[in-house]
Amino acid sequence: MSDRSVLEVLETKTSRRRFLRDGGVVALVAGVATACKADSGKGASVAAAATTPPAGQTGGTMGPHDTSAGASAQSTADAMDAMHEKGIKAFPAKTAVMGNQPLEPKIDKGVKVFEITAKKIQWETEPGKFVEAWAYNDQVPGPQIRVKEGDRVRVVLNNQLPESTAVHFHGLELPNDQDGVPFITQPPVKPGQTYTYEFTVPNSGSHMYHSHHNSAKQVGLGLLGAFIVEPKEPTAHDRADVDQVFILNDGAHGYTFNGKSFPATQPIVAKLGQKARIRFMNEGMMIHPMHLHGMHMTVIAKDGWAVPAPWKCDTLNVAPGERWDVIVNCTNPGTWAFHCHILPHAESEHGMFGMVTALVVQK
Amino acid sequence: MSDRSVLEVLETKTSRRRFLRDGGVVALVAGVATACKADSGKGASVAAAATTPPAGQTGGTMGPHDTSAGASAQSTADAMDAMHEKGIKAFPAKTAVMGNQPLEPKIDKGVKVFEITAKKIQWETEPGKFVEAWAYNDQVPGPQIRVKEGDRVRVVLNNQLPESTAVHFHGLELPNDQDGVPFITQPPVKPGQTYTYEFTVPNSGSHMYHSHHNSAKQVGLGLLGAFIVEPKEPTAHDRADVDQVFILNDGAHGYTFNGKSFPATQPIVAKLGQKARIRFMNEGMMIHPMHLHGMHMTVIAKDGWAVPAPWKCDTLNVAPGERWDVIVNCTNPGTWAFHCHILPHAESEHGMFGMVTALVVQK
Amino acid sequence: MSDRSVLEVLETKTSRRRFLRDGGVVALVAGVATACKADSGKGASVAAAATTPPAGQTGGTMGPHDTSAGASAQSTADAMDAMHEKGIKAFPAKTAVMGNQPLEPKIDKGVKVFEITAKKIQWETEPGKFVEAWAYNDQVPGPQIRVKEGDRVRVVLNNQLPESTAVHFHGLELPNDQDGVPFITQPPVKPGQTYTYEFTVPNSGSHMYHSHHNSAKQVGLGLLGAFIVEPKEPTAHDRADVDQVFILNDGAHGYTFNGKSFPATQPIVAKLGQKARIRFMNEGMMIHPMHLHGMHMTVIAKDGWAVPAPWKCDTLNVAPGERWDVIVNCTNPGTWAFHCHILPHAESEHGMFGMVTALVVQK
Repeated sequence: MSDRSVLEVLETKTSRRRFLRDGGVVALVAGVATACKADSGKGASVAAAATTPPAGQTGGTMGPHDTSAGASAQSTADAMDAMHEKGIKAFPAKTAVMGNQPLEPKIDKGVKVFEITAKKIQWETEPGKFVEAWAYNDQVPGPQIRVKEGDRVRVVLNNQLPESTAVHFHGLELPNDQDGVPFITQPPVKPGQTYTYEFTVPNSGSHMYHSHHNSAKQVGLGLLGAFIVEPKEPTAHDRADVDQVFILNDGAHGYTFNGKSFPATQPIVAKLGQKARIRFMNEGMMIHPMHLHGMHMTVIAKDGWAVPAPWKCDTLNVAPGERWDVIVNCTNPGTWAFHCHILPHAESEHGMFGMVTALVVQK
Repeated sequence: MSDRSVLEVLETKTSRRRFLRDGGVVALVAGVATACKADSGKGASVAAAATTPPAGQTGGTMGPHDTSAGASAQSTADAMDAMHEKGIKAFPAKTAVMGNQPLEPKIDKGVKVFEITAKKIQWETEPGKFVEAWAYNDQVPGPQIRVKEGDRVRVVLNNQLPESTAVHFHGLELPNDQDGVPFITQPPVKPGQTYTYEFTVPNSGSHMYHSHHNSAKQVGLGLLGAFIVEPKEPTAHDRADVDQVFILNDGAHGYTFNGKSFPATQPIVAKLGQKARIRFMNEGMMIHPMHLHGMHMTVIAKDGWAVPAPWKCDTLNVAPGERWDVIVNCTNPGTWAFHCHILPHAESEHGMFGMVTALVVQK
Repeated sequence: MSDRSVLEVLETKTSRRRFLRDGGVVALVAGVATACKADSGKGASVAAAATTPPAGQTGGTMGPHDTSAGASAQSTADAMDAMHEKGIKAFPAKTAVMGNQPLEPKIDKGVKVFEITAKKIQWETEPGKFVEAWAYNDQVPGPQIRVKEGDRVRVVLNNQLPESTAVHFHGLELPNDQDGVPFITQPPVKPGQTYTYEFTVPNSGSHMYHSHHNSAKQVGLGLLGAFIVEPKEPTAHDRADVDQVFILNDGAHGYTFNGKSFPATQPIVAKLGQKARIRFMNEGMMIHPMHLHGMHMTVIAKDGWAVPAPWKCDTLNVAPGERWDVIVNCTNPGTWAFHCHILPHAESEHGMFGMVTALVVQK
């Protein structure tokens, strides 16, 4: 299942409009064990202070002093909690344009032709927050390029930026003159120029394309995208039910997943029993340890290369330039927080923000 | 051997009081090859400048100019060295309360019941240095919870903080309503409230529990602890002679191991030939590469999952949210520095501080 | 092939003087597919805006408004590109002294004796940029010590610094009194003093030696070097055609590889079909994900220990204190960028700088 079809599933289940109307993530978990029941009997339960705890609880009681202190604290806590709740209720928040949209190639005598235009745009990272972006085809990340090992591919770059640029195909083992490094393997592509790369795709895996000219700025502003190469001989992993690109960034646009900050990040959605493949890529300047709640991830590939022995984790360190492919067997129903575990990248006094999304496992 | 019994060994060998009186780490290595001999013949030796070097040395001599420069340098060096020596002599320095103390459960009809109270306290990270902490049961890290795979467990949280909170069991694959994320899986636990989690422990390994509400602040201030799950079928690693939890942190409390900064960090102590299992956990905001002197570590588990093929290292990168279990075969007697190799986390002009401890292998 | 012989190959092929005269990296790739052809037909090509695109291209044209905007942008872009070109043309730039030069031992009754003098010097990190360094034998990194497992080794440290110091052999599993930690395993070595370490080399691999006294400052200023131990039983990896130490640093001297910043970093040079072994070591304070273009790296060892199953990557995260050995099968001819993928460590508006070098595969 491609990225697009993940969203289709979500849209099919309940329209985005209904999502928002119903309070975001709460709607997401319809059909999933409802989380916030006051007393689940065999599960979680809340006992207000100074009330009799429900059976099966050992809830304490507070004395007078604690209650008076508690009244003030309660009011402060309520105000903070309201902010936290608002963010989560807004998730997944709608923004104008999504990045990482599949780019359909034109076919020219058997060659798959992808046209990408680099241009300065305004990009909405969360509802109402617009930042300057330098983008391919008006998206951050740029459109997802997905080809097959052995394909003949042409990438036509149209530079409408105020600076020169170039495209490096990060992870592909191309002939040197297709490597995209100005003054080492090609001249810079000047503003207004068009430049054409063409090659036979040599190695499969989860790769990236991005600027390699004034790159700290240009990649930081959004000139990046996923370049997925399916292998000639598909494995079981290539037939995963969900196949999700997950690009981390931390530059001028704040802490983002696929160009969006929580609550505008998009959940990964799977049905109970399905297998989700997640392709982490880091285009930022910091290392982000990605933590999934409720289920573990099995690491199957590093930088597009199968690992010799898959290994399990729930927190995966993803460094700039790295790509890690993992499989999640979606055996645990519910809405599961999925976030960078550098906590200041994910939560503030005002609630969750930045590098937070969810894996939703639907019954 | 549990964490507690490691300390017992230390206490048995020579009381903490004697430790301090005798000059800390120097006492620790009693019985171990004495390190600071002036001339070991076949080992290290010091030759003062302008003196005849001992046999087997190539020690140079300094001319008049160097001697005069040296006199001034010597005095500066002596002052700096005195500070360095003072810190090391103080190790392991006594502080009022230790964190990570085993929490004995009450048994309620076969259910192991752990009660944790979250409260604001003053915490002593090194002798005389007190910081505000938000702590479980007045400890940083909170008390160590240790159970067995398949156990029925109840955790009763009593919130005496001025903010709402919640407990996430990081690494446990629980039913969604026990996951501890306010507004996604439960309501926030308000000041004065008590909240009860109950579940059957699904997976073994080195896990953690910590706040998942306003977490950058709450975890940063100390609302965290180890949650160890012993497997149903113990392996040789589960019978290690020493079993030590080692929680890294770098927030409001400075650079700490198990809530303490050098020289108040506690050494890991083993006898020659013993096997030590160390469970690294990172609850901070930075990645810390942990370096052990004198012996290597064999990595056996990541986030509680056995690695498919154990691998060796002497410097192990531990990122926020990660847990790494390693085995050290204690074959090399002596007191071995054990520290974060980001050197500004471990040493300043004033001597060692922060993320430094020692592995002591006793003959 | 040792580090030295790599440089010899480079020098043999075309003298450094000719390198510079011919424009650095462009000369490097003589004999390799020339990269910057205007139109390679089957490869990359540039089409100036408003000109007819060459056959096989989809180059667009710009309207009047774009052209006028483009004229201004073009001028800004040209100025920026000139700076970028200048840096790359200067590569590999000559500086006065190189670090990491092999240190030949004296032999004293079968003992290999290495003499290292610690001293304050001025160090040239790139042409004309001098920084204060604390160096062993006037080099940063210090001279490369290379011995064999089982060798008897004596290291004589002569301290001509204004502070005390000591040498820790990072990764070697030595007797405790040779471990080099003042006040734990030895007294500090005062200014003007000479100190002798002597030991039988216990374990093979890529190790380091560096100060362990006031180390954040002393290592940061350059008191560090490679300590390579060849195994008793060489493997195929030990017979690699190129064997290159690659020490990362990020302290007071800026972002450096082997003590030099781009364009003064030195390329790794191999012939097509050769096998290059690269020994990454990090002596800095930050983690650097090293990215190689055009070919992947196969990881064969961590901290001197063979990994149980070699794994492939193109971006390798190297943390402070870690050593990673990789093999690159040099199957792809050309000049390949090789850099830290934290882009602000490698490129600015003024062009590439800091942690950038190249792997040159010569046909």
